[in-house]
Amino acid sequence: MSLLLGIDVGGTTIAGGLVTADGEVVYERRAPARPDAALPAIRAMLAALRGEARALGRPLAGVGVGVPGPVDTAAGVVCEHVPHAADLARLPLAALLREDAAVPVFVDNDVNALALAEWRFGAGRGARSLVVLAPGTGFGAGVILDGRLVRGVAGYGGEFGHTPVKFDGRPCWCGGRGCLAVYASGRGIAEAARERATPGSRLLAAAGGDPLAITAPLVFSAAAAGDPAAAAVIDEACQTLGAMIATIVNGLNPEAVIVTGGVASAFAALETRVLKAAAEYAFDHALAATRVGFVPGDKSVSVRGPAALVLYEMERRTA
Amino acid sequence: MSLLLGIDVGGTTIAGGLVTADGEVVYERRAPARPDAALPAIRAMLAALRGEARALGRPLAGVGVGVPGPVDTAAGVVCEHVPHAADLARLPLAALLREDAAVPVFVDNDVNALALAEWRFGAGRGARSLVVLAPGTGFGAGVILDGRLVRGVAGYGGEFGHTPVKFDGRPCWCGGRGCLAVYASGRGIAEAARERATPGSRLLAAAGGDPLAITAPLVFSAAAAGDPAAAAVIDEACQTLGAMIATIVNGLNPEAVIVTGGVASAFAALETRVLKAAAEYAFDHALAATRVGFVPGDKSVSVRGPAALVLYEMERRTA
Repeated sequence: MSLLLGIDVGGTTIAGGLVTADGEVVYERRAPARPDAALPAIRAMLAALRGEARALGRPLAGVGVGVPGPVDTAAGVVCEHVPHAADLARLPLAALLREDAAVPVFVDNDVNALALAEWRFGAGRGARSLVVLAPGTGFGAGVILDGRLVRGVAGYGGEFGHTPVKFDGRPCWCGGRGCLAVYASGRGIAEAARERATPGSRLLAAAGGDPLAITAPLVFSAAAAGDPAAAAVIDEACQTLGAMIATIVNGLNPEAVIVTGGVASAFAALETRVLKAAAEYAFDHALAATRVGFVPGDKSVSVRGPAALVLYEMERRTA
Repeated sequence: MSLLLGIDVGGTTIAGGLVTADGEVVYERRAPARPDAALPAIRAMLAALRGEARALGRPLAGVGVGVPGPVDTAAGVVCEHVPHAADLARLPLAALLREDAAVPVFVDNDVNALALAEWRFGAGRGARSLVVLAPGTGFGAGVILDGRLVRGVAGYGGEFGHTPVKFDGRPCWCGGRGCLAVYASGRGIAEAARERATPGSRLLAAAGGDPLAITAPLVFSAAAAGDPAAAAVIDEACQTLGAMIATIVNGLNPEAVIVTGGVASAFAALETRVLKAAAEYAFDHALAATRVGFVPGDKSVSVRGPAALVLYEMERRTA
């Protein structure tokens, strides 16, 4: 049986794996990645995984690559906004890798790929429509409606992490303002807490007294331990994540909304608060009809996203 | 050539018409509607239009009805939230009208129908994806992606007017908070201005000194004439409409966003400000790829929406 080769490009780590058509990861490896040198890391990962597939005696059906930014899949080009893999901006990545790969190569946004994996192998199985919200370092999202990934006319489809939950809110690193990412991503949570942490606070003590050492996990645990500044930041994170769930539920009303990604397990522990917030904004009947689930992000299955991308594209081509 | 019979149910007026497959309105009539007696008004309109079609000697291909609230088209039932036509809530309207009509009957949300009309006959012609934002008394929206109307699992798809643009904003009459409708609909603009109008102000004078006589058109004109309270309300309306355009552009990145509806002509005059606001929140490349247009709402063509709904549904059934 042939295998799918999936590569998930992150800001600090690149994960690669060999995956069956049922989503089983039969081989996985990781390598460090530098934000300005993603392409060599992808090429090295591709070569290593191809070698492994040969060693296993399994042919490859295709290669999928998830990148941390929008991709214009129609043009086959990575878009401008890939701060964590800056050397990929404007590159025709699929075409560049095609020669190395010797099989079809598909490239898409990492959270689009993750949404395809949740739909095919995970919590969204069987749904005709689902939206994945993925708070991690940043905040990605992927939208599948009526069985199709919503990529948008220029590849930006699904960038709900960078849409305003507060039109007069704080500036976002994306250039926008009041974005969900400012309030509910790992970076946003850490930055808000750095501004608000007071000398002598539990939060600052947990960071060894250095505001720059404050991370999102520290903020979640300081909030749970009763630090007021941390609690206020986490309250806002839960409230804005709930507001975005309501925006998705009222605006698109999909069968399922799945919260996953690196910060998802911390939010899963606060599920009741997030869902209460969603109920404050959403129509009762719309929310009741949409299943909202939390799936803690698991780096070891992140390669299933690009693998699901390969299956999705190959099926579309033969349909 | 057969005709399409379209009925658009509003809060105060019900409009009906006979429309060709090219979107030409060959006959139109209006009647007053009471929010608690929409069904009898629809039945009377249907009978009158059927009589007119007979008089013209033209057969009917189908009947479309647009209602001011969500519709669960899969179940064929109007949803809970139809404040302007409350007697329709939970009614299987299409089935109820089928016997009178003697041809297929389709019912959907009025702005979903409007989006289909803009797509088929209007400013969205030829686009694979478009979103219609329709500020009127309330604020509706309709989403067409990849050639399909996004209705959602329970019929709420497209209710972007009731999604928060400010998670800690003012309460909305829908039960939510900080909704776009609170800031940028006719009702929201009028209510905000009533709260802020000061004694002796140009705005209050224009309303004859009675805050309850303040309407959205009065607020737009007082703002243009320099009334500070009115100007602040209209600034917020433009800013939040821009924020929602950015949410659509970044989140769904459709080919076109069309602003139409009863308050659209007032916003069209302020297009530069609305687009400047959108640019503050949206990714440059995403916004550049999406065409944003203003189409002043025209009640006389509102019956083209339900007519387009009939064509959409009949083509889907034969596809």
